[in-house]
Amino acid sequence: MIITPGKLLAQIDSPKDLKKLPKEKLVQLCEELRQFIIDNVSIYGGHFGASLGVVELTVALHYVLNAPEDQLVWDVGHQAYGHKILTGRKNSFHTNRLYGGLSGFPKRKESEYDAFGVGHSSTSISAALGMAVASKYKGEKQKQHVAVIGDGSMTGGMAFEAMNHAGVSDTNLIIILNDNCMSIDPNVGALKDYLTDITTSHTYNKVKDEVWNLLGKFSKFGTSAQEVISKVEGAIKSAVLKQSNLFESLNLRYFGPVDGHDVNHLAEILEDLKHIPGPKILHCVTVKGKGYAPAENGNKTTWHAPGLFDKVTGEIYKKVQTIPQAPKYQDVFGHTLVELAKENAKVMGVTPAMPSGSSLNIMMEAMPDRAFDVGIAEQHAVTFSAGLATQGMIPFCNIYSSFMQRAYDQVVHDVALQNLQVVLCLDRAGFAGADGPTHHGAYDIPYFRCIPNMVVSAPMNEEELRNLMYTATQYQGPFSIRYPRGQGVMPEWRTPMREVPIGQGRIVKEGDEVAILTIGHIGNYAVEACEMLAKDGLNPAHYDLRFVKPLDGDLLHEVFGKFKKVITIEDGALMGGFGSAVVEWMIDQDYSAQVKRLGIPDRVVEHGDQIELHRECGFDPEGIAHAVREIITLEVKA
Amino acid sequence: MIITPGKLLAQIDSPKDLKKLPKEKLVQLCEELRQFIIDNVSIYGGHFGASLGVVELTVALHYVLNAPEDQLVWDVGHQAYGHKILTGRKNSFHTNRLYGGLSGFPKRKESEYDAFGVGHSSTSISAALGMAVASKYKGEKQKQHVAVIGDGSMTGGMAFEAMNHAGVSDTNLIIILNDNCMSIDPNVGALKDYLTDITTSHTYNKVKDEVWNLLGKFSKFGTSAQEVISKVEGAIKSAVLKQSNLFESLNLRYFGPVDGHDVNHLAEILEDLKHIPGPKILHCVTVKGKGYAPAENGNKTTWHAPGLFDKVTGEIYKKVQTIPQAPKYQDVFGHTLVELAKENAKVMGVTPAMPSGSSLNIMMEAMPDRAFDVGIAEQHAVTFSAGLATQGMIPFCNIYSSFMQRAYDQVVHDVALQNLQVVLCLDRAGFAGADGPTHHGAYDIPYFRCIPNMVVSAPMNEEELRNLMYTATQYQGPFSIRYPRGQGVMPEWRTPMREVPIGQGRIVKEGDEVAILTIGHIGNYAVEACEMLAKDGLNPAHYDLRFVKPLDGDLLHEVFGKFKKVITIEDGALMGGFGSAVVEWMIDQDYSAQVKRLGIPDRVVEHGDQIELHRECGFDPEGIAHAVREIITLEVKA
Repeated sequence: MIITPGKLLAQIDSPKDLKKLPKEKLVQLCEELRQFIIDNVSIYGGHFGASLGVVELTVALHYVLNAPEDQLVWDVGHQAYGHKILTGRKNSFHTNRLYGGLSGFPKRKESEYDAFGVGHSSTSISAALGMAVASKYKGEKQKQHVAVIGDGSMTGGMAFEAMNHAGVSDTNLIIILNDNCMSIDPNVGALKDYLTDITTSHTYNKVKDEVWNLLGKFSKFGTSAQEVISKVEGAIKSAVLKQSNLFESLNLRYFGPVDGHDVNHLAEILEDLKHIPGPKILHCVTVKGKGYAPAENGNKTTWHAPGLFDKVTGEIYKKVQTIPQAPKYQDVFGHTLVELAKENAKVMGVTPAMPSGSSLNIMMEAMPDRAFDVGIAEQHAVTFSAGLATQGMIPFCNIYSSFMQRAYDQVVHDVALQNLQVVLCLDRAGFAGADGPTHHGAYDIPYFRCIPNMVVSAPMNEEELRNLMYTATQYQGPFSIRYPRGQGVMPEWRTPMREVPIGQGRIVKEGDEVAILTIGHIGNYAVEACEMLAKDGLNPAHYDLRFVKPLDGDLLHEVFGKFKKVITIEDGALMGGFGSAVVEWMIDQDYSAQVKRLGIPDRVVEHGDQIELHRECGFDPEGIAHAVREIITLEVKA
Repeated sequence: MIITPGKLLAQIDSPKDLKKLPKEKLVQLCEELRQFIIDNVSIYGGHFGASLGVVELTVALHYVLNAPEDQLVWDVGHQAYGHKILTGRKNSFHTNRLYGGLSGFPKRKESEYDAFGVGHSSTSISAALGMAVASKYKGEKQKQHVAVIGDGSMTGGMAFEAMNHAGVSDTNLIIILNDNCMSIDPNVGALKDYLTDITTSHTYNKVKDEVWNLLGKFSKFGTSAQEVISKVEGAIKSAVLKQSNLFESLNLRYFGPVDGHDVNHLAEILEDLKHIPGPKILHCVTVKGKGYAPAENGNKTTWHAPGLFDKVTGEIYKKVQTIPQAPKYQDVFGHTLVELAKENAKVMGVTPAMPSGSSLNIMMEAMPDRAFDVGIAEQHAVTFSAGLATQGMIPFCNIYSSFMQRAYDQVVHDVALQNLQVVLCLDRAGFAGADGPTHHGAYDIPYFRCIPNMVVSAPMNEEELRNLMYTATQYQGPFSIRYPRGQGVMPEWRTPMREVPIGQGRIVKEGDEVAILTIGHIGNYAVEACEMLAKDGLNPAHYDLRFVKPLDGDLLHEVFGKFKKVITIEDGALMGGFGSAVVEWMIDQDYSAQVKRLGIPDRVVEHGDQIELHRECGFDPEGIAHAVREIITLEVKA
């Protein structure tokens, strides 16, 4: 079902069409755009609250800016649905996040209006500043460069690095701080408190009024830009704003706070800002979920990406489950951590702004003094954990695999080189699914296994996850555990925990001719493949290695002693990954065998359901069965 | 020659001895400590200016704190020589940075007084906060946690992430901002300007005086802490300091600026700060090189780590060069980039705070509008470069291999997934030498080669570096070039540049029985090894692959078609590295051969001269020759 847009929206296929609208129509367009997002997301799913919160800002930006010449960078990109709809993707919007469809994030390949691909947080100011510096060098004086960044993303360190540079850059850069007090979960930290303070402060409001008053004169009476700017500066200085604002401290002209839901006012302000030279920041106060009562007034984390829902009642649909379901790995992690912490006073939990996504919120509720959301701050999360470990704590630092890339140096430099007992839980390892390439946890095996002292493990099921977590509490050094997004395979998952010898794999199934070596949850696909193959009378052996590092030498001696045909399977990059480790071992030990390595190939794999992507890459159950049949037909080497 | 310490310093083997000194003796102790550093560094080398700048702070900290119970974290650690000397390492200090000797940085293994190992920038607040949160949890109310961080390190994003968390942590955390306007090169950015502003501002000085006045009363007359704190707060608020300071914005109590060279005043202040609860920051103004006139008044970058010098005259010794020397790879990079930029208006240069170390300063002088020092901000440096690339620029972003770990996500997410033409130059790839494990560029081959779209290359000599740099300007995608610290092999290095086909290796020497495959500068060791082996009548072939990715399939077919014994050599981690890539290729292509992979083993390799470390790991020329002899004696497989 393709959603019918409202009358005004129906006419808009690009920002050029939008610019033809008289200003009086903008409010109605906002209503239609908001409704179109509600209609679509309620039946197709996707991110929700963030895009509703910036409907007015999106319309105002495209009304005032001259995209695609002007460069508009959305931080993270959860909020960019309105932007996509206004920039030519209205009629394909129902394919959003589907295999082969639109990306859930801005993406350069998808549209010339997507100035920069996003997905991870806090990149927008750096990217927009790069664009602005290039424009300055090329003498493109009129060109605007806009970064729209949330208050949550603003806590990521690279945003600060970028502002430190921007403040001395003398470029046409407009940073729009979209302040809604939320990331996916409620935003945390001192910056959030500060932003609330300045939003509610009388001094600021007074200065703000004076500034806007002057700006208003400017736009209304055609006063020269130069004159107005100097007056504005005077007003700011006289009220001590110059030195009294965090952003002004970094030499960014600060404007606001303004109501982010007054589209006409926003358009006026943005028009004015275009004429004020130099880097500047506009502080917009918005409400996540704005204009849809259940989201606006309900739990904002739930409504960040609610799944399908009844748009009339606001009821979120749940799958009807007639048979007991296996839990999500995330929940097994969350509950198991609390169990461990109850028995071991040293255990702590750390998440960079993903309490609900990682299920660390279970521990944050049960033991608030031992579980920490440190904000969107992966680097800090890891080194903070290292600090905890120096004092004898055992921190479980849970970071999505693709976000761990943000903390790579901290893992090497602060955890591994010092051999500290930090447990690094890599959630969303393997294909992330609908979030696509920015979120695929594809690289963690290669980037972790080269680090000295690091244990690299992955559980094949819930029981294994619990055992690995327990084992990590008993091991004096860095210990990583990777597991995928989503369900495991064991409805009865509360198994007693036991210590696993470090580096010990296990045999899943005896067999002959071919040995399948797997790591992690993807091993369950091999089980399915073996079941298919059994119907043809084929009987490969299956080993779950459990540890990529250290590898189980005894088990591998058995494998390469018995088998001349071996298949390795991993939900991760083939280059330097698990299969690569097996091959290194084989060659070091002077074995010879035919080895087929299945995993993520060396190219960008787009978004889609996990199983669709596994199929595309040839390691879904069918693909595995095919690989077994194929290797069997190969001539055995002498 | 072991340096004789002054009379007071001679008695101090730990902070306990220091604490016995009457306050009146502290100034003299500082003089002796400073002289001891000058005496040592002038004849043994090492970092210099930074440690001289914190002599008074170091003495004051150990006089007031109760280390090792109190936790003292030095950011980066260049400035920690005084700390080492006062904490039991005076008599071994002449071994600083030598193979088997003291580390040039604080290191947990080396001393219980080194609360956290450092080397990279901006980690100290995160680590100290982790310690402070652990202490709070354990109920250790008196314990102090101090991070000493420079204004340069403060521009690194993770410092900001940590402050955002610290501001809401309610812990005993003291951040000491060591503000000397320098990192290795002069500090850059808006924060630096801001710090200068507040240091010179009258409002601030007035408030500061009032605060210290009250604090003075507190320490002198025993007024209750609670009372004083509330008065101080009042004074701060009344002067609008509360909202007028960047650090106060983040809910850190701000004190200062104070003179960082008044040891008695510093000791008083630190004593007072110990009794003020909650996270706080003390802004100390110091002078890099303080107390040694040539360093204090001369070029501060030169005096950061001057090499050996005549301590009386301040003359820095230079090696007498009687024959033409090969240039440093760094200088080849710097000059070649300017050549390229002169011919190609798109070429730009980016460095995160390493203009002199990387030699980008050559371009910054020649073309200031096209070469950028963005501060200690690796994440921003890479995404800023990606932004430049979206506008058609060709940025050469030069980052040391071990620091590139800080920007790993930005390389994956902002450069590679978007297939942008950013040239990533990894300086200091391979063993860094005396700087040790924090600075070894060991992991970049595994962590880069798993990234889609990424070209991974390494030149064997100066001509190859120039050709690869030129080739990168012709290639529409991410291109990385790794090269080591130090000299190449070609005194006549200004060769004409030519484009190299992507992925094409080259034959260095025909031969038989064994093929040696090398990547990068370390190939010159193989040349030496072959010369040694020739004396024994052995004649291995030698191929320089030039590219780790894509690998040269034609060349490898030739190698594995001809040879059953292959040795790979890389100055990088073996796990997942170059040799691993070769083995993957071999198995994928169903070749069979005995392969010995030489490179950095899977353990932490300490500091020392590069050649000492290569020898230790078995890939110096002798080690390579040995490996050839050994593989020849192995029985050939059927």
